[in-house]
Amino acid sequence: MYRIGVDLGGTNIAVGLVNEAHKIVKKQSAPTGAERAGEAIAADIAKLCLAVCHAEGITLRDVACIGIATPGIANVDTGVVEYSCNLPFRKFPLAECVGKELGFDNVKIANDANAAALGEAVAGAAKGSKNSMMITLGTGVGGGIILDGKIYAGFNHAGGELGHVVIEVDGALCGCGRRGCWEAYSSATALIRMTKEKIEECRAEGQSTAMADAAKITGRTACDAMRAGDEAAKEVYDKYVKYLACGLTNMINIFQPQVISLGGGVSGEGQSLIDALLPLIRKEQYGGDVVELTQLRIAELGNDAGIIGAAMLN
Amino acid sequence: MYRIGVDLGGTNIAVGLVNEAHKIVKKQSAPTGAERAGEAIAADIAKLCLAVCHAEGITLRDVACIGIATPGIANVDTGVVEYSCNLPFRKFPLAECVGKELGFDNVKIANDANAAALGEAVAGAAKGSKNSMMITLGTGVGGGIILDGKIYAGFNHAGGELGHVVIEVDGALCGCGRRGCWEAYSSATALIRMTKEKIEECRAEGQSTAMADAAKITGRTACDAMRAGDEAAKEVYDKYVKYLACGLTNMINIFQPQVISLGGGVSGEGQSLIDALLPLIRKEQYGGDVVELTQLRIAELGNDAGIIGAAMLN
Repeated sequence: MYRIGVDLGGTNIAVGLVNEAHKIVKKQSAPTGAERAGEAIAADIAKLCLAVCHAEGITLRDVACIGIATPGIANVDTGVVEYSCNLPFRKFPLAECVGKELGFDNVKIANDANAAALGEAVAGAAKGSKNSMMITLGTGVGGGIILDGKIYAGFNHAGGELGHVVIEVDGALCGCGRRGCWEAYSSATALIRMTKEKIEECRAEGQSTAMADAAKITGRTACDAMRAGDEAAKEVYDKYVKYLACGLTNMINIFQPQVISLGGGVSGEGQSLIDALLPLIRKEQYGGDVVELTQLRIAELGNDAGIIGAAMLN
Repeated sequence: MYRIGVDLGGTNIAVGLVNEAHKIVKKQSAPTGAERAGEAIAADIAKLCLAVCHAEGITLRDVACIGIATPGIANVDTGVVEYSCNLPFRKFPLAECVGKELGFDNVKIANDANAAALGEAVAGAAKGSKNSMMITLGTGVGGGIILDGKIYAGFNHAGGELGHVVIEVDGALCGCGRRGCWEAYSSATALIRMTKEKIEECRAEGQSTAMADAAKITGRTACDAMRAGDEAAKEVYDKYVKYLACGLTNMINIFQPQVISLGGGVSGEGQSLIDALLPLIRKEQYGGDVVELTQLRIAELGNDAGIIGAAMLN
């Protein structure tokens, strides 16, 4: 049997047909049109589900389940999206809507970061682990918690907001309204802010830095300049790594997961990021010389994690 | 059937015979003698188990299980204490040792903070909840996580160290070696430190405060003086509450537990503490107007939580 995974984003809907080896065999996408009503978005999801089946030469009778990864608070029991920032969902019965369009019963939903974590746990960097977490270092800091092979999201389905854990009281303002959230220090956005701040500081102090030559400051600017030997860039990178290690150590002291995988843009730094983080984490984490320790890995599935995780919701 | 719960501390061993209504019907205790070998401590635990049975006029045949709450990292699968700070346990097979002394098979162990959280979940402030946490505000900040009625402690049994989550990077030094841990701001010890610092500050600035008149500074000094109208004391209390609310909001954003119960010395402040915390938490937590929210309560079982939770380990 196949499964269908849907990754519903603020910009695009991506739908994948997933085989029993957890590989995406067909993928199609369309613009979300987030300004439209929920029903119209659900109808497009349904169309894409049929399209991937058609492309593979199968029908929905060959599909065991459809899973949808959605931004916001997803009630996995009822299939209702309670709320989403980026989409017009307020207590919207997304699973039911898509199911009705298709005459298909088995439609599940989950929060998108949680679905991506499940994808990595089933078929990616945390494959085979008893419990794991995925931390996504992108525009924000997203997180998903997988315990005994299942998403953990709390009694009200709103948990796992790992980016909104304060690591610096009265610190940098976060988009969520709190000050000092992990997200405000460890997202790609934060890395860009730190880079710009340092360039300004260099300018003010008449210190030279290659970072100032970048046409556009991105999350890579500091990393690339640091590798080219730029001192100011190394300061930015070290600061970023220090905060990221702090938040990761927090997660380990709370969860002691078998695996933490890092996804999102910044994780493109790869093993060198892990190598920079691990000594800081090992020095501060609980359980040091006594028990087996959490493994820190780069996520493996990239943008497919959400589709694959969604496909595995049931 | 009865159950036996053992609360093994650095100073005392307390053993309770627990009935089917989760009440302690007999309790006995003895000094731990933490300087002795693990086997000697295990032998005393066994003696106390027999003593509570004798006092109730029953035998071990009337006992379904024995559970031991111990400081340190307790491997619940093997019954081995991997490590404990306060006791001479290094990979010590505590459950097996006590079981052999008694010729009794069904002996389980758990970390003491975790067992207390289980006690509150089964028979205390979090009774009837699907998932819950207990935060103990004492010498340190202890924590226990209960998911689906069971203790969660990670793949290596070392998780749930909620006090050792950094909320202020480069902040106050914690006993664990990290800087800025929640424990360094929200323990009774931290409240006493903040109180002493404020008294010093008042002295230096020639400001009067009733707190300075206390024969001995305790966790209650600032709270009592604040209620008597002392301005400096109110500043201390407000600061303490701010940090505590920050850490609790962190836990809610991660876990969205149905109930968080507060135990330990500071929780003696009761409902007024909850009333001070809730507005700060509600303002910052995720899920605000959309979903059902975590309830914050004062723990109900006091020192019995560990015994009752230990009794329920199997």
